[in-house]
Amino acid sequence: MKADQRPFPLNAWYAAAYDVEVGRQLMARTVCNQKLVMFRKTDGIVAVLEDACWHRLLPLSMGRLEGDEVTCGYHGLVYNAQGRCTHMPSQETLNPSACVRSYPVVEKHRFVWVWPGDPAKADPALVPDMHWNHDPEWAGDGKLITVKCDYRLVVDNLMDLTHETFVHGSSIGQRAVAEAPFVATHGDRTATVTRWMENIDAPPFWAGQIKQGLGYEGKVDRWQIIRFEAPCTVVIDVGVAEAGTGAVPSGGNQGDPALSDRRRGVNGYVLNTITPETDRTCHYFWAFARNYCLGEQRLTHQLREGVAGIFREDELVLEAQQAAMDAHPDHQFYNLNIDAGSMWARRLIDGMVSREQGPASGAPVIPIRRAA
Amino acid sequence: MKADQRPFPLNAWYAAAYDVEVGRQLMARTVCNQKLVMFRKTDGIVAVLEDACWHRLLPLSMGRLEGDEVTCGYHGLVYNAQGRCTHMPSQETLNPSACVRSYPVVEKHRFVWVWPGDPAKADPALVPDMHWNHDPEWAGDGKLITVKCDYRLVVDNLMDLTHETFVHGSSIGQRAVAEAPFVATHGDRTATVTRWMENIDAPPFWAGQIKQGLGYEGKVDRWQIIRFEAPCTVVIDVGVAEAGTGAVPSGGNQGDPALSDRRRGVNGYVLNTITPETDRTCHYFWAFARNYCLGEQRLTHQLREGVAGIFREDELVLEAQQAAMDAHPDHQFYNLNIDAGSMWARRLIDGMVSREQGPASGAPVIPIRRAA
Amino acid sequence: MKADQRPFPLNAWYAAAYDVEVGRQLMARTVCNQKLVMFRKTDGIVAVLEDACWHRLLPLSMGRLEGDEVTCGYHGLVYNAQGRCTHMPSQETLNPSACVRSYPVVEKHRFVWVWPGDPAKADPALVPDMHWNHDPEWAGDGKLITVKCDYRLVVDNLMDLTHETFVHGSSIGQRAVAEAPFVATHGDRTATVTRWMENIDAPPFWAGQIKQGLGYEGKVDRWQIIRFEAPCTVVIDVGVAEAGTGAVPSGGNQGDPALSDRRRGVNGYVLNTITPETDRTCHYFWAFARNYCLGEQRLTHQLREGVAGIFREDELVLEAQQAAMDAHPDHQFYNLNIDAGSMWARRLIDGMVSREQGPASGAPVIPIRRAA
Repeated sequence: MKADQRPFPLNAWYAAAYDVEVGRQLMARTVCNQKLVMFRKTDGIVAVLEDACWHRLLPLSMGRLEGDEVTCGYHGLVYNAQGRCTHMPSQETLNPSACVRSYPVVEKHRFVWVWPGDPAKADPALVPDMHWNHDPEWAGDGKLITVKCDYRLVVDNLMDLTHETFVHGSSIGQRAVAEAPFVATHGDRTATVTRWMENIDAPPFWAGQIKQGLGYEGKVDRWQIIRFEAPCTVVIDVGVAEAGTGAVPSGGNQGDPALSDRRRGVNGYVLNTITPETDRTCHYFWAFARNYCLGEQRLTHQLREGVAGIFREDELVLEAQQAAMDAHPDHQFYNLNIDAGSMWARRLIDGMVSREQGPASGAPVIPIRRAA
Repeated sequence: MKADQRPFPLNAWYAAAYDVEVGRQLMARTVCNQKLVMFRKTDGIVAVLEDACWHRLLPLSMGRLEGDEVTCGYHGLVYNAQGRCTHMPSQETLNPSACVRSYPVVEKHRFVWVWPGDPAKADPALVPDMHWNHDPEWAGDGKLITVKCDYRLVVDNLMDLTHETFVHGSSIGQRAVAEAPFVATHGDRTATVTRWMENIDAPPFWAGQIKQGLGYEGKVDRWQIIRFEAPCTVVIDVGVAEAGTGAVPSGGNQGDPALSDRRRGVNGYVLNTITPETDRTCHYFWAFARNYCLGEQRLTHQLREGVAGIFREDELVLEAQQAAMDAHPDHQFYNLNIDAGSMWARRLIDGMVSREQGPASGAPVIPIRRAA
Repeated sequence: MKADQRPFPLNAWYAAAYDVEVGRQLMARTVCNQKLVMFRKTDGIVAVLEDACWHRLLPLSMGRLEGDEVTCGYHGLVYNAQGRCTHMPSQETLNPSACVRSYPVVEKHRFVWVWPGDPAKADPALVPDMHWNHDPEWAGDGKLITVKCDYRLVVDNLMDLTHETFVHGSSIGQRAVAEAPFVATHGDRTATVTRWMENIDAPPFWAGQIKQGLGYEGKVDRWQIIRFEAPCTVVIDVGVAEAGTGAVPSGGNQGDPALSDRRRGVNGYVLNTITPETDRTCHYFWAFARNYCLGEQRLTHQLREGVAGIFREDELVLEAQQAAMDAHPDHQFYNLNIDAGSMWARRLIDGMVSREQGPASGAPVIPIRRAA
């Protein structure tokens, strides 16, 4: 990436909130360094405006929502849901420049998606696929955490699950994850890392799940199929099945996952979308959806809190990494074999940013070398 | 204002403390980015010195006051009330440069006023008129709050009381304040905004006052006469009277306030002087004086706490506005009709600063446009 | 010192920890702006490595110690005690550049000393003499505090004990310390300040010690022999004896301390070594050793806490001084007679830094003038 580039593209859909967070009150949130105010109109549709009054910059989120209009909490300027000022105190003529920016919004897969770039390019078809979040064949729940790091460090973290062995040793980590071979592939907007672990002991988390789901205790085949969709969504197909019952497609990492027979297994999707808040902080929306014990609320609750605990372990690592990078601004990083997935993710992100910011300037490119 | 200008003049009297704050102990306070140490001499006169020992910069306020001299709390250098060093440890000859700056001081209208600029220009006649603060015909009390904003944002706030409607809706705000016409005038050092509201329902605060003061319940005439004295004092003549009893001078906003007959009304003065602490923080001294129920201590207490609650609402808005301005350093502001008073106040402040800093440099002037 | 110079030399031994702090767990500490991870190997020898994984900069101190190797807590890279990477996940060939810096270490006089500069110059003979810290003829204890100031301000503080009179008036301070004459001398790496106070009342602290040690109450002779060893160790020989029993050598400050007869006195050594953590913070290791009542644990405990209280008084002053210096970056300091010792200490430090950084650049030298 060029030294003067933004760390994120603007022409993209970013999750700004869980659907349930946005209602008939004004809610402030920052996305890609842009301060937003969000609310549902009386028709239930979400509106998103710039969170700064045109007059004196007071956050509109400190004002009042009346009908579909927002009244500034300082001098009472009123804005409609398109951001146009419709009333000024002691004044009959309104300045034609009196408006705040409004943002394209789509509500889909349980998230409110905002497009901080050129509105003309905001194609709803580009919203990432996270349908497991509301599909009746899957059950789950999630959370939003705000992490004090560049959102790309979270993407790196998810694109290489080797770290489970060292960061999450008490739950989902095990030697096999660091040792089993994997395959990384990529497309124009996606990158995929596939890893199959055959005939292993399940780590504590998965041993509990397959026992609960299928009453099975014994050796398992385990899989992790990590799919990145630029710029910041990572959906991970995870699970274990009774060893040797066909979950691992013939050919293993070279085989076709669609031919995986998982009838004797339990399957989850870890849904992650990581929205830059600023250059060095991010909103990390995640959920865990499963295809077993669908009606058990207790398990949903337990999984949500269990996964939250695992993600807190990541948070400590990610914030320490960001602090170390801030302390070594000129550090040159080397990539290992395990970084193949995140390298592709980074290239796809860099490509989106470069296309937005025009042809390369003369700014120096920091080379990334591959370890021998 | 020029981009490289200070936000405040130095050649001016600034309230540095309430009189009762300064006694026979060393007190630290920062005024216009200058760290001061204040104390009363044995004769009761207040002395103000630079709060940094000439030798190693330790704040003198960490030392000891003995008689009229201050001993540094590190190595024992002694300074007299004029800032001259009179003793050094282990040394008989004193370096002639060994002194700290002393400041012109006037104690008047219950405040200790300090002049941070050229001492030769410190004319006591220039102290702003806040005599209601100790006049026996008026009773009142006040507080000091430190607000995390440029002092000029507080001046802006006071020069347009439209905001009462939106910020102080539960006490003094009402639609009439935002809707009634007003008149703004100015002189060489002052700017005035006058607004009369005839035959209206009193807002909760004033309904309580006129009932308590005169036993009256019913329609009122209300007035706000805001008088700014550069650079940072705002005295507001406020009150309500029984509707139609002559409080509104004939001609209304165009009339002569001196011809207002307030015998059937209750009158208060909101006394405000806002001292820059730094470029982005200020000491806001305020008091509320009234001309009714003079002997009722309970009312004095109640008004002090009531007004303090109203000013906390302003504090939230002012600090949010400063934060938003810091986040948008190049934002170009537009003025509305309601900003007429603060525009004049700003021009008077800018004029004082420009006269101090000499003829305009080539620095760019940020234009302020008026809304159409 | 040149404006662009570091405030400390790198080619020097710095105390990084008390011996007991370092064990079979990973411990993080910053020395001279360098982040270190420390641990004891299975043979008991201390190893010190750079605290940032070569791969993604995660602090190694967040990882695990197994045998003599450290496993990174993110992706499991393993480093030996020399800092060489010995294992990478999913990879058989290790990049030859994969290592972190290791530091020369010596454990001596109860401290772990680290050399942050050129390892080839790390001569163990250069470790400062603090043998009282483990000599069986002396008993004592100490602490580590982290002070938010340039380490040189602590050196200044210790090189002129005049401040005891003003900072520590309730324990060791007394007028005599500020008034008695002293002599400052220096060598190539050391500077010494000697002060004898004859036939005085003991201050509260020493009155208690000589009563406890010798059952004596009455006039004393008191001494302070401050010895600085560049860049940051100050050992102070302090004590009182029955007045007139030969503790003061003939000739007083001009006499030979070796001829001091202290048989009728109590003697302590204040051992101080102040390690820069960053340019504006330091690790201050101190201990107080005595030659009387050696076996009394209660006295050891009482002295440790008593001296800790005295040093907290210094901390307040030092942090206020640093804050004032930060607020006056261009302030020109004048030296008094009492600053003779710290002037020599500063010159020795500056000489070490200048020799490391090569011949003087064109950067401006800030002159230090002596008070007349």
